[in-house]
Amino acid sequence: MTDADSLARRVREGDLRLHELEDHADHDTAASARRQLLEADTDADLEAIGSYGFDAEAAESAIENMIGAAQIPMGVTGPVSIDGGAASGEYYLPLATTEGALLASVNRGLSVLDDAGGVTARVTKHGMTRAPVFRVSGVADAAETVEWVETNGDRLAEAAEETTSHGEVIGIEPYVVGDSVFLRFAYDTKDAMGMNMATIATEAACRVVEDETPASLVALSGNLCSDKKPAAINAVEGRGRSVTADVVIPGELLEERLHTTAAAIVEANTRKNLIGSAKAGSLGFNAHAANVVAAAFLATGQDEAQVVEAANAITTMDTREREQAAEASESGDSETVTDLYASVSLASLEVGTVGGGTKLPTQAEALDVVGVRGGGDPAGSNADTLAEVIAAGALAGELSLLAALASNHLASAHEDLGR
Amino acid sequence: MTDADSLARRVREGDLRLHELEDHADHDTAASARRQLLEADTDADLEAIGSYGFDAEAAESAIENMIGAAQIPMGVTGPVSIDGGAASGEYYLPLATTEGALLASVNRGLSVLDDAGGVTARVTKHGMTRAPVFRVSGVADAAETVEWVETNGDRLAEAAEETTSHGEVIGIEPYVVGDSVFLRFAYDTKDAMGMNMATIATEAACRVVEDETPASLVALSGNLCSDKKPAAINAVEGRGRSVTADVVIPGELLEERLHTTAAAIVEANTRKNLIGSAKAGSLGFNAHAANVVAAAFLATGQDEAQVVEAANAITTMDTREREQAAEASESGDSETVTDLYASVSLASLEVGTVGGGTKLPTQAEALDVVGVRGGGDPAGSNADTLAEVIAAGALAGELSLLAALASNHLASAHEDLGR
Amino acid sequence: MTDADSLARRVREGDLRLHELEDHADHDTAASARRQLLEADTDADLEAIGSYGFDAEAAESAIENMIGAAQIPMGVTGPVSIDGGAASGEYYLPLATTEGALLASVNRGLSVLDDAGGVTARVTKHGMTRAPVFRVSGVADAAETVEWVETNGDRLAEAAEETTSHGEVIGIEPYVVGDSVFLRFAYDTKDAMGMNMATIATEAACRVVEDETPASLVALSGNLCSDKKPAAINAVEGRGRSVTADVVIPGELLEERLHTTAAAIVEANTRKNLIGSAKAGSLGFNAHAANVVAAAFLATGQDEAQVVEAANAITTMDTREREQAAEASESGDSETVTDLYASVSLASLEVGTVGGGTKLPTQAEALDVVGVRGGGDPAGSNADTLAEVIAAGALAGELSLLAALASNHLASAHEDLGR
Amino acid sequence: MTDADSLARRVREGDLRLHELEDHADHDTAASARRQLLEADTDADLEAIGSYGFDAEAAESAIENMIGAAQIPMGVTGPVSIDGGAASGEYYLPLATTEGALLASVNRGLSVLDDAGGVTARVTKHGMTRAPVFRVSGVADAAETVEWVETNGDRLAEAAEETTSHGEVIGIEPYVVGDSVFLRFAYDTKDAMGMNMATIATEAACRVVEDETPASLVALSGNLCSDKKPAAINAVEGRGRSVTADVVIPGELLEERLHTTAAAIVEANTRKNLIGSAKAGSLGFNAHAANVVAAAFLATGQDEAQVVEAANAITTMDTREREQAAEASESGDSETVTDLYASVSLASLEVGTVGGGTKLPTQAEALDVVGVRGGGDPAGSNADTLAEVIAAGALAGELSLLAALASNHLASAHEDLGR
Repeated sequence: MTDADSLARRVREGDLRLHELEDHADHDTAASARRQLLEADTDADLEAIGSYGFDAEAAESAIENMIGAAQIPMGVTGPVSIDGGAASGEYYLPLATTEGALLASVNRGLSVLDDAGGVTARVTKHGMTRAPVFRVSGVADAAETVEWVETNGDRLAEAAEETTSHGEVIGIEPYVVGDSVFLRFAYDTKDAMGMNMATIATEAACRVVEDETPASLVALSGNLCSDKKPAAINAVEGRGRSVTADVVIPGELLEERLHTTAAAIVEANTRKNLIGSAKAGSLGFNAHAANVVAAAFLATGQDEAQVVEAANAITTMDTREREQAAEASESGDSETVTDLYASVSLASLEVGTVGGGTKLPTQAEALDVVGVRGGGDPAGSNADTLAEVIAAGALAGELSLLAALASNHLASAHEDLGR
Repeated sequence: MTDADSLARRVREGDLRLHELEDHADHDTAASARRQLLEADTDADLEAIGSYGFDAEAAESAIENMIGAAQIPMGVTGPVSIDGGAASGEYYLPLATTEGALLASVNRGLSVLDDAGGVTARVTKHGMTRAPVFRVSGVADAAETVEWVETNGDRLAEAAEETTSHGEVIGIEPYVVGDSVFLRFAYDTKDAMGMNMATIATEAACRVVEDETPASLVALSGNLCSDKKPAAINAVEGRGRSVTADVVIPGELLEERLHTTAAAIVEANTRKNLIGSAKAGSLGFNAHAANVVAAAFLATGQDEAQVVEAANAITTMDTREREQAAEASESGDSETVTDLYASVSLASLEVGTVGGGTKLPTQAEALDVVGVRGGGDPAGSNADTLAEVIAAGALAGELSLLAALASNHLASAHEDLGR
Repeated sequence: MTDADSLARRVREGDLRLHELEDHADHDTAASARRQLLEADTDADLEAIGSYGFDAEAAESAIENMIGAAQIPMGVTGPVSIDGGAASGEYYLPLATTEGALLASVNRGLSVLDDAGGVTARVTKHGMTRAPVFRVSGVADAAETVEWVETNGDRLAEAAEETTSHGEVIGIEPYVVGDSVFLRFAYDTKDAMGMNMATIATEAACRVVEDETPASLVALSGNLCSDKKPAAINAVEGRGRSVTADVVIPGELLEERLHTTAAAIVEANTRKNLIGSAKAGSLGFNAHAANVVAAAFLATGQDEAQVVEAANAITTMDTREREQAAEASESGDSETVTDLYASVSLASLEVGTVGGGTKLPTQAEALDVVGVRGGGDPAGSNADTLAEVIAAGALAGELSLLAALASNHLASAHEDLGR
Repeated sequence: MTDADSLARRVREGDLRLHELEDHADHDTAASARRQLLEADTDADLEAIGSYGFDAEAAESAIENMIGAAQIPMGVTGPVSIDGGAASGEYYLPLATTEGALLASVNRGLSVLDDAGGVTARVTKHGMTRAPVFRVSGVADAAETVEWVETNGDRLAEAAEETTSHGEVIGIEPYVVGDSVFLRFAYDTKDAMGMNMATIATEAACRVVEDETPASLVALSGNLCSDKKPAAINAVEGRGRSVTADVVIPGELLEERLHTTAAAIVEANTRKNLIGSAKAGSLGFNAHAANVVAAAFLATGQDEAQVVEAANAITTMDTREREQAAEASESGDSETVTDLYASVSLASLEVGTVGGGTKLPTQAEALDVVGVRGGGDPAGSNADTLAEVIAAGALAGELSLLAALASNHLASAHEDLGR
């Protein structure tokens, strides 16, 4: 009888509970025992789930009640040339997904972007946020609390920053609704996604608020952060990185490679991504940025639930006229070519290259493919680069899908690729 | 020289392109060659990514340019008793995540829910949607088109249903904005998530619209679907399954197991999930439903990018007074106990148990753990069950986090669990 | 001592309360007494407020505690030719406002629209809504209630329609959130704005729901109506009339009359009304539709608080290329002219031509100016016409402001007009 | 033949245009001529519209193409005691409306608020905003522009403030979407609503931006202001005044005066204003704040179209337990009474007491009734007071309606009051 058999028996006999197995055996054995128990209870065969390739003990900070791993197919897209605020040069972007045709689509887009001279990208705003909610007796106390906070930002920042060696307070914004006061703390968390850093630092600051004002903490997160919910406050003010990628694609390239025109793509973008999204009451004005963000998050060890707000994007497409010498013209005549300006602006892309899931083997390797594993130099530059590369990938996805829609063959593409 | 070496060399020499390798070797060799090329280009070591456990050829419908797999730690939560419209009995829910403490939190919640007598759940609405956008010359033609569609729904349904053996048209809703007409088709797609089925069927219907009205198709998706964007139209009207899970938890159980009271939890929910979300301009009125939805989607082979709208949830918490005989009372006195009513309503949970990522080995095993792999009997009942089980998991997560917030120790929980 | 003096004295002595004066004197005297009391209490001189021109007794259904009237300057815009679903011919639109430059702007726009051949307009959807919220014990009862409602729509419609001689039930849509069930009733209310008709009819239907299901009514309005709040449900599904007005304006006319081009107007609309509104998390994708809607509502006796949702509009502007014979060309050469397609789609314009404020003298006269006072033939056609005329006015306002913005002189226009 | 006859004839003969009459006669005569023309064209009799009581020439800054005035019935509500940041003492609030039962409802609420000890109110944030949109060539230039703006805020403020004797720049917030840069300028505009002041000042600052950065102005308003549209940016960040009014109402008073309990009101508020609004995708979490805001705006000369965002409000209602000596108790026993905490928080209430419509006679008198006509001492205090008084009125309206809903008699109230 193996150790796993023995552990499983003790659970069946009520001697141990399912989450206590790691206290009585190594992590692999504990996982094995759980699979055994589940297989008995459910008729499932968990061989594939049990064939994981990482150190179960090291995964302890990522999972409890472990039984193994989900394996998500990973492919690679790129390379594409990026002129970024942090990124500079050629980049590959690994994507993990079960959405057939996605990588083909992104690759097609990246290839066109590269041929157009590459992508320009910039992080235009950054700050990981945490927004506790406090109870006060009424608006008189709320106003007093807000005034104290506005006058004593330094003290709150000091208390917050004592909890962290990396994080810095960028701002503290108060909001009042009746007898609730919300304080939205924003932090520079460098190469960490930073939510836990922000949570711990904010908790320290909250103790000062409670000491010095009439306010009592109700919840460390009062949903104005907003974490893992699609909220306008993030779309407007940003969270994590606000990043834009853009490009100008020559009209000739659109025709040769995407079999369409700038005007047709602009029309599809306007009717679908702008007007359609407006009519839908949407917080996302894009075609499928979430596909790229989710797949890049999975590959590189980001928080998958943050795709909810990280995928928030506005895609813009516009025609640009360009005069050039007419082909085969001896007379010096010029002709007008219509190029495409295309951009994707992700308002709240929360990414990190240290901590969390980035330490797992497949995820760390994927970060190596991008060239951003671990802390950057200067601090924060790796996460900035990752944000810019993902934005470039999202732009490629938007371009490719809009071109396909413009060509009116979305469904047939799916049929061909067997989905 | 292995086949992979040879393929890689041909790519380097410009003889082959990275996405063409499967045409010249088996899928494992092609992936191996790609890893070799990436390792050379990027200094990454891709051993872990290369250690995947599925049939690369079978994964062809899920990925292109494959290099291997991302491995995401998977654990198990439950069991919990569910009284659902489809679900009935005890259920485990596997979750794949790198979010430490999540499974512990969900498990704590499920355990309390189970002790409270289990979860009640119902799918209250269903329908996978696809909403093409058409161009017309102006509103006169738009009105004419809408009128034709409203009169000829049967013809459109017939054309749509010819493309599918399972899907049924539930409704076709027209929307007009200037010279754009959107038609939102809703389908019963049984146990399939159904987006591709809906896309293909809608394309057939669009051809009829184009033949019979002044409208010309611009894009098969006009963003009123809305797929992978957080849109009010889904929050209001639903997409996939609209599912609610709820429970009444005795006050005594709250104190014993969660060390808090119904009133404290209700206060945290109201200030954070209702008022905080309102002030944030949010489409999600919950604490962290996305954590459970994302992890369940990963484990069971759902479309990870759909977490964006699938996690859209309203969490409600309310006190309920209950009279009971006073303890140790000989006089027949009664006392009032305050119980907690808790619910999570997910408006647009898109799930399937056939097709897409559900066919991959680890994902199929996870579906077996829930007991819903493949098509249900009656058709649709497996996907309904999965929706109800995920809703129960989300309810557990909400309960657990709100109880923790009410106890004011979110950050310290994170510290303890090493995140 | 006048009657008013005497009434005022009795209030001062505590013998009467301010709202009881109409029980002891005619309405004019009561109003006079109130002014007297206010003048004494506040040092205000209420002569202008006291100089009203309507029958105070007849205003009893519009106001309580009357002291007189607010006088809002009214002007006239138009005429403009409208080809509508109901409207047909030349229309004036009276506007009451204190927003200097508004009428000049709308008039400039209407004049251009008229020269372009007039406005096309259509009501594409209609239905006044009321959505009560019910309490159930949990989602099991919620699902049962929804099922009953879906099966027994006829009974609910019958009960509702017994309360009204005009209204007809168009639809009843159920929504479930935890232990709350919302039913959104939509009515055809003909020429009445219809909110009170809808309220009364819905109350009757609610009694049936309470009798036949486990649901108990909590509030006759559960905010899914949504009345006087800017809600996506109205923007998506409509309320009152969904109406679009559009036009194609020749490029030559844009240059002559608005000193700009289609391309410049389209750019302003796209960056401001589409992208800017998207970034702002807006439910309104327009420049200033509310100015026209508010002023038309004031002039014609509509409910001013409904401007909140009635002004919800998406403005689209697009270029349209047109080939024409080149000027002064003997060779038959053609040239391309770029025209402007412009539209405004108001999703939830609640208007009526009977009942409410439409009976007051100045408002009734304004309705006569439009030609839609009282019930139409067929019923509903007067309210449809009013909706189409307001939409044409809104289109004129959008066109004029966007043209001005395109010409970059908004502020100077304000300076010139003395605001 | 009167002057008006003669003017009318000249218009008919094509000698004059309708908007040119003031150049050829005094303003009253011009209005008279327009009425004459309209009466001939439309069969309307415009006697009531022609019976206005203000100086037509003085109204020139408020209207063009004047024909007269709309008369809206005005009543008075209050008095109520307010402990505000600016307001202090007893206040009346005049309301102009055609919404029967509204004043009765507000008055009932104010009376209860007053008996509960009066309303507490505070302006918690202020700032009139204007947000131009600029065109740049791409995100590289956008980032450069943003950096310049962030470094040179002083220069922009200086340029802006040169245009105004009163206004001060509070902040300048940049937002980037692709090749569009938005700058949201916020101003302290003292007792003026301030939109025109903000527009003119911002235009001056824009010239500096254009001189010093790659950005070109496209529109002085880029819809991130946001003016007259319901936008999350205003709901989150505020515009004009963010003001809260609140109160604690003893349980006994609720029963005596409103025939209901705190618990019943809280339930109605939670299901309708919080959960219902959440489900509706609403930006307004209240019952009918717009009724009070619209009526107060009309009475006091505010911009009626701004009701769209000014009515944006979150209403919160909560129970508060209070221990008190039991009635008729000799033993010193205590009993628990459940009081009601009620609040209304208006995020973006744009009000002024100077300029615009406040100068018209009936509106100026209404401002006198509130005691806030003209500039305050200190500057801004009159507009602050008006904001606090309107918030108190909105709170009264919410309380009254929720109590009525809780008592389940909304429709019957309407029936009784003859609507």
